[in-house]
Amino acid sequence: MRISVLFSGGKDSSLSALLMEPFFEIELVTCSFGLLPNCELAAKTAKELGFPHKVLSLEREILENAYEKLMKDGFPKSAINYIHEKAIETLASDSEVKFIADGTRRDDRVPVLSISQIRSIEDRLGVQYICPLKGYGRKAVSILVDRYLRIEEGPSESIPKADYETELRELIRQRDGEEKIKELFPAHIQSHVLTRKKLP
Amino acid sequence: MRISVLFSGGKDSSLSALLMEPFFEIELVTCSFGLLPNCELAAKTAKELGFPHKVLSLEREILENAYEKLMKDGFPKSAINYIHEKAIETLASDSEVKFIADGTRRDDRVPVLSISQIRSIEDRLGVQYICPLKGYGRKAVSILVDRYLRIEEGPSESIPKADYETELRELIRQRDGEEKIKELFPAHIQSHVLTRKKLP
Repeated sequence: MRISVLFSGGKDSSLSALLMEPFFEIELVTCSFGLLPNCELAAKTAKELGFPHKVLSLEREILENAYEKLMKDGFPKSAINYIHEKAIETLASDSEVKFIADGTRRDDRVPVLSISQIRSIEDRLGVQYICPLKGYGRKAVSILVDRYLRIEEGPSESIPKADYETELRELIRQRDGEEKIKELFPAHIQSHVLTRKKLP
Repeated sequence: MRISVLFSGGKDSSLSALLMEPFFEIELVTCSFGLLPNCELAAKTAKELGFPHKVLSLEREILENAYEKLMKDGFPKSAINYIHEKAIETLASDSEVKFIADGTRRDDRVPVLSISQIRSIEDRLGVQYICPLKGYGRKAVSILVDRYLRIEEGPSESIPKADYETELRELIRQRDGEEKIKELFPAHIQSHVLTRKKLP
């Protein structure tokens, strides 16, 4: 059984893939609006982890709608959630995709699909959507990441990553300048996975 | 890292253990109020699955409080949730226990701890509580169970199982008779795990 894991190169999506590796044939999928070449980094990380990787092009209209939402709200929650939902729908519309997973954790607030959004996607598109880390708290995730992955961490603007936020930030940089990014996105710590640790 | 998995002999707790097996040292734990010898069945199933098993005796007072709740409410939800919370607290109070898991699924409504109950237990008792199936829907669980486990299924009164409901039902049988059980517990399908399937 093949499962398509939405993959940013960060620790959560990487750990998700590792947890499912004994039970599924893993394929890592990185979404791109074509604004930045950050998929190359995700592809490199995927190779380090030993998983096949592909890039999923998302409609530019999705990014434009997310930009509108972000400008209207003044904070990124609903814009990021919107991109996430559309990314899963785009992936699920591939008739060969039967299982989709991502790195959503118990304590995450963004991006998180509601239970009704999940059921709607599963029923309409004939896929099963799995969040392997949904039952894991922050500390349990940290312990497993520390055990299985070598990562680098830092402020979100300095860590290269292939998540939805990166391209949304880039669009704002192009249109509204660097200062606007700081205004709209709270500073937070990002992680980028370098490779697996050897198992003990 | 050892993890104590609350184990009823059913498919959800068995699948939880299987999903964590590559990453943790599994110990299956079945709770008992000593009213029924149903732990023996769980011990037999644990042996079939190839995991060490222990019985955790719960204070009789917990069952009495649950009985009171059930009689007051007229349906078992809060009684079962209460026993579940107390079972996890009892297990977590063992200073050697650092990780606790159970078979809670995405679509389960009972027993489910709230996020504040979970954080309270983790903070007070220094454990990490993991629900490996929390991000799996009903169909994804079915597919994995079908792949890895041989089970028998049937109405809850005919399937031998070592969950909280079984002893709560027994207490009602002793005090209020068979008819009262049918009145209080909605009929539902239970599963009992027989053994692992050979991997393909």
